[in-house]
Amino acid sequence: MSEVKQLIAAINDFREAREWRQFHNPKDLALSLSLESAELLETFQWKTSQEALATNQQAMKEELADVLIYALMLADDLSLDVTTIIQEKLDQNNMKYPVKKSTGKKDKYTTLE
Amino acid sequence: MSEVKQLIAAINDFREAREWRQFHNPKDLALSLSLESAELLETFQWKTSQEALATNQQAMKEELADVLIYALMLADDLSLDVTTIIQEKLDQNNMKYPVKKSTGKKDKYTTLE
Amino acid sequence: MSEVKQLIAAINDFREAREWRQFHNPKDLALSLSLESAELLETFQWKTSQEALATNQQAMKEELADVLIYALMLADDLSLDVTTIIQEKLDQNNMKYPVKKSTGKKDKYTTLE
Amino acid sequence: MSEVKQLIAAINDFREAREWRQFHNPKDLALSLSLESAELLETFQWKTSQEALATNQQAMKEELADVLIYALMLADDLSLDVTTIIQEKLDQNNMKYPVKKSTGKKDKYTTLE
Repeated sequence: MSEVKQLIAAINDFREAREWRQFHNPKDLALSLSLESAELLETFQWKTSQEALATNQQAMKEELADVLIYALMLADDLSLDVTTIIQEKLDQNNMKYPVKKSTGKKDKYTTLE
Repeated sequence: MSEVKQLIAAINDFREAREWRQFHNPKDLALSLSLESAELLETFQWKTSQEALATNQQAMKEELADVLIYALMLADDLSLDVTTIIQEKLDQNNMKYPVKKSTGKKDKYTTLE
Repeated sequence: MSEVKQLIAAINDFREAREWRQFHNPKDLALSLSLESAELLETFQWKTSQEALATNQQAMKEELADVLIYALMLADDLSLDVTTIIQEKLDQNNMKYPVKKSTGKKDKYTTLE
Repeated sequence: MSEVKQLIAAINDFREAREWRQFHNPKDLALSLSLESAELLETFQWKTSQEALATNQQAMKEELADVLIYALMLADDLSLDVTTIIQEKLDQNNMKYPVKKSTGKKDKYTTLE
């Protein structure tokens, strides 16, 4: 079993042992993912990256794990293969952000010249 | 190379080809992860899960991929191993949400009796 | 003094008494506003609107107040008049969502026919 | 009629003219408020406050207006008076953050000494 499939299996074991699948509709999973990413962002509130890293690394690690856990549950419930959708998105971004036009620029593709 | 390491390598190739690492400080990566998770959530706005799945599956797939890409970049930049932090978080949740107390309940661990 | 100006004055007194203006750059205020709106949204996590209202009204009230406080601080620091920007946005939305085309529809203006 | 009540009346006219109240349950309003605050935050992505102000002031103004519009709709639908809940929250914060302990500090009240 691949690394990602093993992680998803462990996460599914966790939620099934608690009979939580009944609550896990895609809308509330997406909502929860958004809440966890806010909690991750909170570790940087009023701080530079450096200040945040100096004090909040443990919380960062835990909140990033929560983000990944919700993202993997949602992918699994939508029958999406994580490796496939990432590769497809990179291919798509490759066309939206051609190396020639976007090197060293932080513009959105809609405003790239 | 493991599946996750291969994904991270592909993502790093993408941002390095465009010289984007100079913009990728952890605070702005966490901020971007939060924006992408909002775009994912937007596919469910004013809709039930079912309605959203009927009309927005392509957008859902793309936004979830963006969330995962930012989460993997941030993990890599913070030198965090994805499999390790997920397993540690599941272990931690195992203690916060004992099967006996939390089965079939959607309460936060702080209010579990 | 108008109602909104009085609220802003009370909020400014609060932050000035604590010498917090030094931390209140617009980027961190916008970030904080986003965190508070996530905390408000959390009162609805895993719940229908009705279930949330039955149990979390006190938290809802407090989080909505936090959202408003950050929004008013940001408006004030950007020298934006709340009444003016709301009226301008309603005028703009009036053109983006003509009554004839948008009545009873939840589509985004980009997909209105 | 007070300034805030006039704003709410204008917003209610707008949504009633389009028969949108049927979509406006509190959960989706809170979700939408969170999406709009992400769009506001996006105007600061990859930028310092100064860089964002130099290029994105128009977008900032519009997104902040959207945040305020959703916040006012939600307050009105929950029968909450904006001035009252802000004043109550300031009183509450006054006790959580005593001037003596919190002056010049950006710590959360839970970690104030």
